[in-house]
Amino acid sequence: MPENLIASTPSAYSYPLLVRQLLTNSLSLYGDQEITYRGEVRYAYRDFRRRVGQLASALDALGVRHGATVAVMDWDSHRYLESYFAIPMMGATLFTVNVRLAPSQIVYTLNDSQAETVLVHIDFLPMLDAVKNELTCVREVIVIADGQTVPTTGWMIAGEYEELVGRASPDYAFTDFDESTTAATFYTTGTTGDPKGVYYSHRQIVLHTMASAMALCSPRAGQRIHREDVYMPITPMFHVLAWGMPFVALTLGLKIVLPGRYVPGDLLELKLSEGVTFSHCVPTILQMLLNAADASGHDLSDWTMIIGGAKLPPALCRAATSKGMDVFAGYGMSETGPIVALAQIPPGVTPADADDDVRWRAHTGRPVPFVDFRVVDSEMHDVPRDNETQGEIVLRAPYLTQGYTRRPDASEELWAGGYLHTQDVAVVAPDGSVQIVDRIKDVIKTGGEWVSSIGLESLICELPGVQEAAVIGVKDEKWGERPMAFIVLGSEEKVDANEVRRHLLAHVDSDALSKYAVPEADRIVFVDVIPKTSVGKFDKKMLRAQHD
Amino acid sequence: MPENLIASTPSAYSYPLLVRQLLTNSLSLYGDQEITYRGEVRYAYRDFRRRVGQLASALDALGVRHGATVAVMDWDSHRYLESYFAIPMMGATLFTVNVRLAPSQIVYTLNDSQAETVLVHIDFLPMLDAVKNELTCVREVIVIADGQTVPTTGWMIAGEYEELVGRASPDYAFTDFDESTTAATFYTTGTTGDPKGVYYSHRQIVLHTMASAMALCSPRAGQRIHREDVYMPITPMFHVLAWGMPFVALTLGLKIVLPGRYVPGDLLELKLSEGVTFSHCVPTILQMLLNAADASGHDLSDWTMIIGGAKLPPALCRAATSKGMDVFAGYGMSETGPIVALAQIPPGVTPADADDDVRWRAHTGRPVPFVDFRVVDSEMHDVPRDNETQGEIVLRAPYLTQGYTRRPDASEELWAGGYLHTQDVAVVAPDGSVQIVDRIKDVIKTGGEWVSSIGLESLICELPGVQEAAVIGVKDEKWGERPMAFIVLGSEEKVDANEVRRHLLAHVDSDALSKYAVPEADRIVFVDVIPKTSVGKFDKKMLRAQHD
Repeated sequence: MPENLIASTPSAYSYPLLVRQLLTNSLSLYGDQEITYRGEVRYAYRDFRRRVGQLASALDALGVRHGATVAVMDWDSHRYLESYFAIPMMGATLFTVNVRLAPSQIVYTLNDSQAETVLVHIDFLPMLDAVKNELTCVREVIVIADGQTVPTTGWMIAGEYEELVGRASPDYAFTDFDESTTAATFYTTGTTGDPKGVYYSHRQIVLHTMASAMALCSPRAGQRIHREDVYMPITPMFHVLAWGMPFVALTLGLKIVLPGRYVPGDLLELKLSEGVTFSHCVPTILQMLLNAADASGHDLSDWTMIIGGAKLPPALCRAATSKGMDVFAGYGMSETGPIVALAQIPPGVTPADADDDVRWRAHTGRPVPFVDFRVVDSEMHDVPRDNETQGEIVLRAPYLTQGYTRRPDASEELWAGGYLHTQDVAVVAPDGSVQIVDRIKDVIKTGGEWVSSIGLESLICELPGVQEAAVIGVKDEKWGERPMAFIVLGSEEKVDANEVRRHLLAHVDSDALSKYAVPEADRIVFVDVIPKTSVGKFDKKMLRAQHD
Repeated sequence: MPENLIASTPSAYSYPLLVRQLLTNSLSLYGDQEITYRGEVRYAYRDFRRRVGQLASALDALGVRHGATVAVMDWDSHRYLESYFAIPMMGATLFTVNVRLAPSQIVYTLNDSQAETVLVHIDFLPMLDAVKNELTCVREVIVIADGQTVPTTGWMIAGEYEELVGRASPDYAFTDFDESTTAATFYTTGTTGDPKGVYYSHRQIVLHTMASAMALCSPRAGQRIHREDVYMPITPMFHVLAWGMPFVALTLGLKIVLPGRYVPGDLLELKLSEGVTFSHCVPTILQMLLNAADASGHDLSDWTMIIGGAKLPPALCRAATSKGMDVFAGYGMSETGPIVALAQIPPGVTPADADDDVRWRAHTGRPVPFVDFRVVDSEMHDVPRDNETQGEIVLRAPYLTQGYTRRPDASEELWAGGYLHTQDVAVVAPDGSVQIVDRIKDVIKTGGEWVSSIGLESLICELPGVQEAAVIGVKDEKWGERPMAFIVLGSEEKVDANEVRRHLLAHVDSDALSKYAVPEADRIVFVDVIPKTSVGKFDKKMLRAQHD
């Protein structure tokens, strides 16, 4: 079979997809566009580009070369944005350190990343000092004073960020290289085990930018971004590259507002003073913004906001829309770029009422272009689109992490069967909209069906007298697994296993529950207390260990 | 220097950018969306996908394999759209034959493409019959009867399109292959020489789709495409892949209306009956649509239309906007994918009045994302952005043809210095907007400046008594080139060279013309007639030959 690849004349430019190219159009058309840090520092895109060159020159002078890793520990700032571009554009790897992790985990990730140079805000310098002896690779730090005095430190200080950048040459010669060069890395923390490194190439960042922009720009009206928006991230820039949105904003030429450390009152002031119209955050931050606005009387209207990181509670969504915010959920993970679905109201759909509107905005979402988004059973067959049959979300997209750093087993598990396994269990509606119902480790696979332990727990808790309920799957020779329920009753309450079964069977009769989901009477156990983890969640690992 | 490419775990899916992937999201979310041919044939995206599989199976049964070239000669139809996907998705090359060329040129392009199979509408079958003996590669034809009777033909008929597709299996197993595989080819015809083949890979088509969609979706309002648009091409599907817009429309999940042969009255009826909101065409067609609507009273409002292929005359633009059309120019060539610039009104700009509005819509345009769009002098230095200094438009983008088929010299000339040379001469405004002023072969390079022959001709024609004027560059030892003007006066008119110079020098005084642009008196020649080509243009080649 002839390969039939296109032939390139020797002088032709093949155009690798590099982070540098995200700036091409913006610098040509929007050189005057503003970037501001808290309204205190303000400069134009053309100044940004000059500073990116200066930062690269400064890093180069410190010995940072193609293939090196440079760690950043900062609040959301113009410095972070400069790092997003300068470090990858040099062919080096940007490591965005999660400054919210425990010091021991920060030590682990810094050592694992092999970063030798760290850009560190003075707020984090005491912590770095405290763990200095445990850090095996870091050689030197560039201190970000942010207008304050640099404290004493045991580290070798290569310089203060503004000083280093200010005196460096803007004319660093950025060159082309392979688009599969690593551009960025960071760590994902599960509930158990060490953090795992994910990584993205230049090509992947560019394609995530393009696909996300297509998804976000294309709605007729609402739940969209456009060229006249003013962008402010409220998901930290260390967290999955702020969902990749700074790249989208710069590529579209938007005014960018970087808010520093998140203080709800400051964020509301910046929204007002800088005219912010587009942001993204987690539900907790949204709740804080609503509370702060209630107290201060700030206007929240004309603010489009993607909510991700955790399920958007309908009541919170309703509270936000009732204040004129255009909020909607986004779905993704550290491993997925991250954006793979957005809860945009579909073309042609007009929500019937406020509840319906909230349902659309708060559901898991609809896949963005180029994402092969499947919900599959254990044999990797697509589940029917009946909004009922559960399966795991598995993905292909041009920008998913291709593994975990130096973790071959976990990498293969992630990509089993050629699809990235999210471990999220979901149902699909006939129109392709997806709703997550559970995490796969909490799903019970019985008789070929998937039963949500969380769903079962909610139903059991409906029964008067039940205080709390935890459901796990236990091995069963005939059915593979069977559900087992642990129930705590209120004091003085009397409920027996048959009552629980009768209650659940009523839901089976009304088609709300599969008959396979009802535990046998001897698998309904009343206990005084359910073991919990340090963060207060049911410790199902312990329950399983005790009863498997 | 360490390469530092991202590592892929063996099971990871690397996601090549293939034409097939343009359908992924649409089929998942918009399976019910409509595609109609003239309102007479109508089916859903999911049917489209099935027919794409059937067409591939039918072609496979005829021996079409990865690497083969399949030619298509059809009006704009669902069949053409099926070919846009099925043929590249098989790993074969789609050759879109320009059915408007002279038969001898069609013979040349069919032979040069080495296509063995031709899908041909019966309207073009007599022509193919007439040149049968000259075609060296074509083995067989698939006849598109389009509901009519198949005429007798000397060709081996492999079958009728609908019959072949109808009985073939939809389950053709499309596989992945290298994203640099050739997906499509077609020919560009200059004023001299044989047509030259350009070609695009899967990756290039996908990236053109993404970049065009970003540019077209991102405006706040106006001059945009969105998910609820209804798309109808009015640039033939054989012409630069209908500017790539069918790929954009399918990727966004739009309703698609394929109008068959362009008949103005039919196009207006389809606009009305199918609710078309987004199209693209050349100025001539726009004029025909306006004329037809004047006669028939059809409403043209809510119709967004990109105008390309030739300069959009301001008066025509005004006529269209006054009827409520949202028209704007697009710029590109067969060699460029094609879309590299769009005349969208920039963010934040509100046109001062109707004239200003037309000026924005009818200018050459503003570069689309990812296009490195430069206007350079002969030494490849960017010209100043003064809206005055002329230079050639040279380009880099992720989707420019990497050469001409089997034309190494022309390919190297196209890509001299690593940029694609458009041979269009333009000026750039401070905001990055571009206006073409000339073709490079008609520009006179004198004393380091570029003088537009067309501009000079217009100025000379302003002088009372001048009937027509042609300007060429002639060699000059000191200045490189000097302009030379050939002027035809009206009968009875008397104008001398000094009057012409005085007239031009007045424009120099008012800064409208460079002093280098004024020809010496002995290079202003009065003639009875200026030689013309067969299509009525000045034959500057002959003028140069006579006077160099």
